[in-house]
Amino acid sequence: MIAGSAIAAPAGARSGFDSVDPFIGTGGEGHTFPGAVVPFGMIQLSPDTRIQPRKDAYDWAAGYRYNDSTIIGFSHTHFSGTGHSDLGDVLLMPIAGEVKLERGDVDKPGSGYHSRFKHDDEVAQPGYYAVTLDDYGIRAELTATERVGVHRYTFPAGKPAHVLVDLRTSMYDYAGKTLWSRMRLREDGTVTGVRETRGWAPGRQLYFAMRFSQPVSGHALHDTEEDIAYKGFPTPGHQDPRQRAQIEGRELVAAFDFDDATGEQLLVKVSISSVSEDNAIANLEAEVPGWNFDRVRTAARASWTEALSAIEVDAPEDDRTAFYTALYHTLMAPSLFMDSDGRYRGPDNAVHQAEGFRHHSTFSLWDTYRALHPLLTLVQPEQRNSDFVNSMLAHRRHSPYGILPVWSFHGLETWTMVGYHAVPVIADAYLKGIRGFDAGEALQAMVASASYGPYDGLAQYMELGYVPIDEEGEAASKTLEYAYDDWTIARMAEAMGRDDIAATFGKRAGNWRHAFDAETGFMRARKRDGEFRTPFDPSASGYGTDYTEGNAWQYSWYVPQDVAGLIDSLGGDDALVSKLDQVFDAEVDPGLFEHMEDITGLIGWYAHGNEPSHHVAYLYAYAGEPWRTQERLKQIVDSQYAPRPDGLSGNDDLGQMSAWYVFTSLGFYPVAPGSNQYVIGRPFLPRAAMNLPNGKRFTVVADGLDDANPYVGAVLLNGKPLERSYITHEEIMAGGELRFTMQTGADTTWASGAEQRPYSMSGAGG
Amino acid sequence: MIAGSAIAAPAGARSGFDSVDPFIGTGGEGHTFPGAVVPFGMIQLSPDTRIQPRKDAYDWAAGYRYNDSTIIGFSHTHFSGTGHSDLGDVLLMPIAGEVKLERGDVDKPGSGYHSRFKHDDEVAQPGYYAVTLDDYGIRAELTATERVGVHRYTFPAGKPAHVLVDLRTSMYDYAGKTLWSRMRLREDGTVTGVRETRGWAPGRQLYFAMRFSQPVSGHALHDTEEDIAYKGFPTPGHQDPRQRAQIEGRELVAAFDFDDATGEQLLVKVSISSVSEDNAIANLEAEVPGWNFDRVRTAARASWTEALSAIEVDAPEDDRTAFYTALYHTLMAPSLFMDSDGRYRGPDNAVHQAEGFRHHSTFSLWDTYRALHPLLTLVQPEQRNSDFVNSMLAHRRHSPYGILPVWSFHGLETWTMVGYHAVPVIADAYLKGIRGFDAGEALQAMVASASYGPYDGLAQYMELGYVPIDEEGEAASKTLEYAYDDWTIARMAEAMGRDDIAATFGKRAGNWRHAFDAETGFMRARKRDGEFRTPFDPSASGYGTDYTEGNAWQYSWYVPQDVAGLIDSLGGDDALVSKLDQVFDAEVDPGLFEHMEDITGLIGWYAHGNEPSHHVAYLYAYAGEPWRTQERLKQIVDSQYAPRPDGLSGNDDLGQMSAWYVFTSLGFYPVAPGSNQYVIGRPFLPRAAMNLPNGKRFTVVADGLDDANPYVGAVLLNGKPLERSYITHEEIMAGGELRFTMQTGADTTWASGAEQRPYSMSGAGG
Repeated sequence: MIAGSAIAAPAGARSGFDSVDPFIGTGGEGHTFPGAVVPFGMIQLSPDTRIQPRKDAYDWAAGYRYNDSTIIGFSHTHFSGTGHSDLGDVLLMPIAGEVKLERGDVDKPGSGYHSRFKHDDEVAQPGYYAVTLDDYGIRAELTATERVGVHRYTFPAGKPAHVLVDLRTSMYDYAGKTLWSRMRLREDGTVTGVRETRGWAPGRQLYFAMRFSQPVSGHALHDTEEDIAYKGFPTPGHQDPRQRAQIEGRELVAAFDFDDATGEQLLVKVSISSVSEDNAIANLEAEVPGWNFDRVRTAARASWTEALSAIEVDAPEDDRTAFYTALYHTLMAPSLFMDSDGRYRGPDNAVHQAEGFRHHSTFSLWDTYRALHPLLTLVQPEQRNSDFVNSMLAHRRHSPYGILPVWSFHGLETWTMVGYHAVPVIADAYLKGIRGFDAGEALQAMVASASYGPYDGLAQYMELGYVPIDEEGEAASKTLEYAYDDWTIARMAEAMGRDDIAATFGKRAGNWRHAFDAETGFMRARKRDGEFRTPFDPSASGYGTDYTEGNAWQYSWYVPQDVAGLIDSLGGDDALVSKLDQVFDAEVDPGLFEHMEDITGLIGWYAHGNEPSHHVAYLYAYAGEPWRTQERLKQIVDSQYAPRPDGLSGNDDLGQMSAWYVFTSLGFYPVAPGSNQYVIGRPFLPRAAMNLPNGKRFTVVADGLDDANPYVGAVLLNGKPLERSYITHEEIMAGGELRFTMQTGADTTWASGAEQRPYSMSGAGG
Repeated sequence: MIAGSAIAAPAGARSGFDSVDPFIGTGGEGHTFPGAVVPFGMIQLSPDTRIQPRKDAYDWAAGYRYNDSTIIGFSHTHFSGTGHSDLGDVLLMPIAGEVKLERGDVDKPGSGYHSRFKHDDEVAQPGYYAVTLDDYGIRAELTATERVGVHRYTFPAGKPAHVLVDLRTSMYDYAGKTLWSRMRLREDGTVTGVRETRGWAPGRQLYFAMRFSQPVSGHALHDTEEDIAYKGFPTPGHQDPRQRAQIEGRELVAAFDFDDATGEQLLVKVSISSVSEDNAIANLEAEVPGWNFDRVRTAARASWTEALSAIEVDAPEDDRTAFYTALYHTLMAPSLFMDSDGRYRGPDNAVHQAEGFRHHSTFSLWDTYRALHPLLTLVQPEQRNSDFVNSMLAHRRHSPYGILPVWSFHGLETWTMVGYHAVPVIADAYLKGIRGFDAGEALQAMVASASYGPYDGLAQYMELGYVPIDEEGEAASKTLEYAYDDWTIARMAEAMGRDDIAATFGKRAGNWRHAFDAETGFMRARKRDGEFRTPFDPSASGYGTDYTEGNAWQYSWYVPQDVAGLIDSLGGDDALVSKLDQVFDAEVDPGLFEHMEDITGLIGWYAHGNEPSHHVAYLYAYAGEPWRTQERLKQIVDSQYAPRPDGLSGNDDLGQMSAWYVFTSLGFYPVAPGSNQYVIGRPFLPRAAMNLPNGKRFTVVADGLDDANPYVGAVLLNGKPLERSYITHEEIMAGGELRFTMQTGADTTWASGAEQRPYSMSGAGG
């Protein structure tokens, strides 16, 4: 029996816990990691199998690839499902026998400190990961609290036991990435340090503290950097790395020896902090004062069991696995980013104190405003959702630019992707009744973010009503996304009685029209002189073109705030449907996107692996043809998700891909956050009960669910026929039952009437 | 009339203030700077004339060389008189007309933003510096508080006014020195930032805040680094440096425009902090809330007037200038290193809070334990001296190595030079009655520092009684200096009744004997096997040899704790005198030290420009021949000091060279700090009155002082003949008068008796 797999599930109702397979997404395009994390935990402790030069790093954004057979070590910070990457901080590797200081070539066994492993020896559960390191005969187990990673290494008998700590490694490797680092062995055996990196985030400082369950019997602190222009004067012990108390430099690696651990178990506790080494120590002591690995693991299991209990699902095993793994992947970010004393580092790289909220970071907002945040509003306590908003408001207060986060992690801004999508997250939260933040400050922050001229063509957008492509790249996408974001400001301002702001931004919400080319029926980029840029090819794709990670076929449906207006512009319902069909049914040479690693999961032009497509299948419903949405959803679910390591067709993007799956499985999707509408698609689960944060319960039942019954027939809300193809947030939060009867043939009349479709709300401009 | 020279001296007694010439030491070997600083101020705001590659930087250790004719700008941190260097943080240059971003080649006018200047246009006074930048026609004036530098720029009419801020420059320039930096223009016009450097101190973080008296009408933030491996995503305004709100990188330079300053005065206030940008702002607001340059200058003048009033001197003008400039140079370090809220960064690079003391840093202890700290005990309030000790104790508490500072600045340890000379500073303070620190903790820290094995051969020293040269460089010097330091521990332990410690370290104090070679009469380096290293050449000199910055001729007199023992070993008084004469009278080829830039000020082998020689002339008195000391002192004073820019024959070393001059001018010198004895040499001033920190007054009078009367005749202490060649600390602190009658011929009998000589105290081993 494999050590560590001995903790049994609690008795009683079957928990989602056992259905989670953290390996899903670790192959293929998902970029998830299999390691140990608690819900929204600051620590993501996970094995890294390969560290690539940046140009080759895309597939290893989460450190671990299921197809690899070598583990380099276990590092403490990971993104779940990003395209771009960073992190991989403080890598530990247990070693039995001779210590090698270089990680070597993972394709050459014995060339470095890495070790081979087999999937048969791996166990991955929420909050727990275990593997046997074959080159050393070491069983390594990982678990975590919010801010502490706990390692349990079982060393073989007869060989010296060591732990290597490598501060040189990162997800993306390149010269000069580590700006500075420090490692110190304190008298009490605590190891502390810091790593400052120039990565995706600039000048990121990551402090850590580490304690071992057995005394350090020896140590060696090494700086492997060569050709240092000036080394300063030698520190005590410089002649012998075993006598050094501290080391500073840009390429640090240390080996710690444990004479008493040979043939025994050694526990290592590692905490991180953005504030200081002292704070890292405080985090360590606050969360894991003792040396009971199983207690930490059990607590992590309890946290996950509770978090996953937000939705109770009856479904076949594979569907359960796919569903609960998706739900698991939605409960990781935005992650806690605050020390036990409430301090954290902000986008000004200064230390701040959280007052009255728990500060979170890792906001992948271009992705997550779509479905992840709306999902978390339904499955997480209101407090957590308020924390997200308060964290973004704090970011804005600390920002040198005075605006809300765009793509931030570890408190710092990366300026990745486009739009100001903190705005729809806040508006959606407010409009859904979340009140644990200062709405006045929030609205002010939203307006400030939407008015900051130097940001991505925003000055020109405010001047012209669109972003001119001759002055700013990806102008078509930016115009469209700004207009949607503006609409959410108008919606929130209206709800707050701020009619002045509502009027201004309601007008701006109509700016999507400046991108619409009536002649071709596509959204296009206009130049300052008002002309569309030519030549125009709707299939042309590339980074930094007129569109963001896409082309005209993919971006021309981005008017979630005014689909009715889009339909009008296109020439009516049939025009939309026909054009959507052209998207899905196109014969597309996949080679067209070979140079765009983010564009994956192709069905025709539809790219489920990237976010601009996520709402598209639901648009048929706006044209009165919800049965076409039902068809497309089955097409997507069948082809883009599978309960296998390569079962995610695109980057999970901190849970957005998975949130799409969770919503779609339940039978509805938030096409336009800010509207409080969920567009009904079709359910993929026989029965799912949502335990809502207000204590109510909303159940979705799909009678007759079967591959032979792919269409929705009767729809009952609380026993009464529901004639429209959307439900509202208020209806869900009131609790109750949404019952579908699935059938073989399409019901082409249900919700086809003008009044029965999802609709655009006031403030949509025009 | 030159602007800014209008502030008159206060009425009344003539102050030392007017006799200070800050240019002394800025040429030749002194390495002092002429800029604005207050006593022990954290800011040293001074012009930099040339920034050299490290290999050529020795002469520019303080940034300014009197022989240069070009100013690059004004930076805010400088060392006074070091050999090695660093600092030069946050360089400002006012510009009228076109902005150049590169400093250019100072030998080519117009090749960069530097400007020519003339000494005729310079004014330098304590706390004030002014110059005209000829290339721009700008009058630039500088003054300072403890933590704030204030610039006043008078711009010519008709040209755009700018201020350039260069974060790329340092005293020593080399690739990779700046690890990271940041600059931010805040909405209120405050500029803040940080610079992290890998210099003499590793990973030093220097935060700053800057405010202008006129609105910033435009700005441009530039990063001039090329070939960045990975730049991250573009920040808002990246296309136009004038739209950037913040910039981060390794080569930052910014230009700020002031439309309203053309033909007008612009004030710039700049503060620094080791803690954070917010703390830098707080320092700025606490110390210089308004915009009155003259008020700051007047306050600086008042601080200096008070500090210099510790000694009132009647002497010819040149002697006054030399004396008060020397005293001025002794009142700069250890300098304040703590923000207005009491926080500072320590040797663990963490932020700490000073409780009950003001934290100081810049401890050049190998130099300053000799005469600077003993002088400050006499001329500064007891509180300041307690602060020094408390700062060193804090350093030890924060040190990853658990030991007292060796050579620290800006809170960080540089490990420069040898010995653990914080120990004699603390012991001397304690033995002289300074009590504002925890003596128990201090003794513990001293013992810990003297027992830390990995430090510079200390493990072997504790094992063998000497540092073995085959295992550790400069072993002869280290053995000698450790033994002296050990003696001071014994002295303090004895005074505290800790006889156990006194016995241990009293024994160690005798370890100098292990270095003494009876055969050659020199101190030599022994190998582990007990043999002296051969071949032996007492003239052999070089860095990293058997001696520290010297040779056997220079180091063989380093037994301040047991000169009597040394005399015995050499074979008696005559042997010592004869050997000392060989030192001074040798014919030495100066080329011998061409490769050792620190060895300067040669008189034979005697090198007054470096510290190991500083006590040597006083040793004749121990052999009962004080008249020979009198001769040598005149020889040294006449040849090594002059009131001219090149008037210091060696690096001032944070005031040690100057402290030697102050003591020697007064007529006595602390050969063995820890003994409470001052060895009487001969006075060089007709009359000097010390206003002691206890409120008493001790006056030294030299009747008949004249070049024709170079010898001491009668010596009266408080009117009674003083028969011995030393006075005690207690005698000085009691107040009174020491009166010398100078005469033409040597008095060869005075203080020649065994009981009349300075003597070694108990605990000197044996």
